[in-house]
Amino acid sequence: MLEAEVKARVEDLDRVEKRLSGLGAKYLDEESQVDLYFNHPSRDFSITDEALRLRRAGKRLFLTYKGPKLDSLTKTRIEHEVGIEDFEGAREILLSLGFVPVAEVRKNRRLYSCRGFIVSLDSVEGLGSYVEVEGRAEECKTPERLLGFLQELGISPEESERRSYLELLLDKKANAGPPD
Amino acid sequence: MLEAEVKARVEDLDRVEKRLSGLGAKYLDEESQVDLYFNHPSRDFSITDEALRLRRAGKRLFLTYKGPKLDSLTKTRIEHEVGIEDFEGAREILLSLGFVPVAEVRKNRRLYSCRGFIVSLDSVEGLGSYVEVEGRAEECKTPERLLGFLQELGISPEESERRSYLELLLDKKANAGPPD
Repeated sequence: MLEAEVKARVEDLDRVEKRLSGLGAKYLDEESQVDLYFNHPSRDFSITDEALRLRRAGKRLFLTYKGPKLDSLTKTRIEHEVGIEDFEGAREILLSLGFVPVAEVRKNRRLYSCRGFIVSLDSVEGLGSYVEVEGRAEECKTPERLLGFLQELGISPEESERRSYLELLLDKKANAGPPD
Repeated sequence: MLEAEVKARVEDLDRVEKRLSGLGAKYLDEESQVDLYFNHPSRDFSITDEALRLRRAGKRLFLTYKGPKLDSLTKTRIEHEVGIEDFEGAREILLSLGFVPVAEVRKNRRLYSCRGFIVSLDSVEGLGSYVEVEGRAEECKTPERLLGFLQELGISPEESERRSYLELLLDKKANAGPPD
């Protein structure tokens, strides 16, 4: 229910992957993920810092709610997720309820497990390469432990990025100016 | 997507079941269903004639949206339904989004298939016995065909009930007056 997480943009995922090997990380999986984000019919998630997402991860489908971030250092927040059997059916339900599709995030994700953390090496369409570190073991969920592990991967706490991929994409779009 | 349906209260489900046998109906299944209904965070479904429901039907779980009724004779409406893997997770998502639990409907349902219709024989907690007839074959979806088949089961069109079980339960509660 509590998703304890930090994220950072990196230039070179291969370098992080080598660090992970050095730490004895276990390779879990690779998958392409397509995330469709929605805004709420009567409140603005960009203000309330919430998110509602339909995810296609390989053959698995999920509906996920994320609450506002809970501290000033990490991306830690309440998360409720449920597996669903039909992406299109869920999309139709959300549209009928007045939820508004905002943006789609597409990425390739390589997953590792290491010392109570789950590490995602993400190549995100239109945004670049990112590392996400999630604390799975209870003792790995504090900001200190999350940022400490990021440092072990060669990434300083100052490089941490608290904006979601959705926010990064929308910021990029807002800053791009009108097309030529 | 289009749920074409009529419903009627009956005194005696056994009598309808005998009629079904006489028509050569095929027995499909029996299951106990628990339906949790929600109201919308910013519109009143009792006014807009919509519904959002989490259903536990035996071991299967569903999230279902129902649009307003489309004609004045039947309960026919748009329906979007998706199988889900976790009732509690879906409930948490809906609560977090501001949906409000309104009432729970519990029933036992015996299902038959007959001549392009699906017939449900329902024993509903607190409400009594009902027959629902849903047109599955395309040619069975008109009000005339639906009410005609109800008549073959010994139920006249005037006995048809357009209120949902949720509405019937809420009406009963409203009419019950304060407890002693």
